[in-house]
Amino acid sequence: MIRKNLLPSKGDETRALILDVAVQHAAVAGFDALTIGTLAAQTSLSKSGRFAHFGSKEELQIATLDEAVRRFTEAAVLPSLKVPRGEKRITVLFENWLKWTENCGLKACPMMSASNEFDDKPGTMRDAIAHQMQRLDAEIIGNIKSAIEAGDFAADTDPEQFTFDIFGIIASYYRSRNLFHDKRANQRALQAYGRLLATVRPEKPQQA
Amino acid sequence: MIRKNLLPSKGDETRALILDVAVQHAAVAGFDALTIGTLAAQTSLSKSGRFAHFGSKEELQIATLDEAVRRFTEAAVLPSLKVPRGEKRITVLFENWLKWTENCGLKACPMMSASNEFDDKPGTMRDAIAHQMQRLDAEIIGNIKSAIEAGDFAADTDPEQFTFDIFGIIASYYRSRNLFHDKRANQRALQAYGRLLATVRPEKPQQA
Repeated sequence: MIRKNLLPSKGDETRALILDVAVQHAAVAGFDALTIGTLAAQTSLSKSGRFAHFGSKEELQIATLDEAVRRFTEAAVLPSLKVPRGEKRITVLFENWLKWTENCGLKACPMMSASNEFDDKPGTMRDAIAHQMQRLDAEIIGNIKSAIEAGDFAADTDPEQFTFDIFGIIASYYRSRNLFHDKRANQRALQAYGRLLATVRPEKPQQA
Repeated sequence: MIRKNLLPSKGDETRALILDVAVQHAAVAGFDALTIGTLAAQTSLSKSGRFAHFGSKEELQIATLDEAVRRFTEAAVLPSLKVPRGEKRITVLFENWLKWTENCGLKACPMMSASNEFDDKPGTMRDAIAHQMQRLDAEIIGNIKSAIEAGDFAADTDPEQFTFDIFGIIASYYRSRNLFHDKRANQRALQAYGRLLATVRPEKPQQA
């Protein structure tokens, strides 16, 4: 089907408006709090209008997660693709990951919310967030393999372990920032990342 | 007021039964899902009986969090106090932290749930979980200071940074275990912890 013009339709705009409110709401209150009624109260759209866009609460949750991932990709992953593969790309991804919620006007990370909310609840949302997190891990693992090939990281670097460690830094950063309002959260995260890098750098050959 | 005997009263037993169900429910479904009605469905107690024990939903949430912290303290903190201060105590705490939910028959960590659920919602529950997390951090920081004094850790070890890093390992461990069902989650956590320890050990004096 060919669109007659490239301007967004009224329906596209409405959908975008709903998803914008939904992503912000889910980041703070969680995805289970995403109800048609709650979102109706935050926009000027009627309930019936909203239903036309998302058939069920689960469809709304999935669409909201997809939109959050799209923003994360735009804010953190895409900038990293502009620098060469290897350590530099991982660092750009990490640094943008630290500030992506702020750059997207979000108070917290919707993917972290979804992960904590659904990890023990089998179903479509659990599958979706596990899939997204695994995609992210695969992206980092691929970058680490490139960093090893480029000689930035030692040959015996374990890409999955490094990815496990990076995620830990991010999770602890969110806790320091969001729960403790610790102004040094960013500095702590960068310091932890620097320490992690130091453990995977190849040993420099001894000077003769 | 002096108790006439040391046997638990009927009221104590009922309260313990409610809290046992509540802690398990909150670990998986979150604290906001802790409603009198939901818990009534999981026990044989009537709604009115339950109300007598917890005046409000918030009181029930706080009591559930306190009970979860009590179990964590018993399962992870107390065993660490049986070994000498220093690195060994931190390691015993860390290792018991990794297995405390399993040892307590919980599918996930209620404190992690609460932290993610309330970090952006000002109120009594936010204050309570922030307070509990800060107490835990203070416990670890105190242990690290002891480890420095004992010479297990280098004098320039930053106790707060180490605590930030330990929490990250635990958070990443829960993600690997609960979201990915990764059988190597425990191994990854121990490896990350070992790497962290290696960065704070004092340099051995050169042999002459």
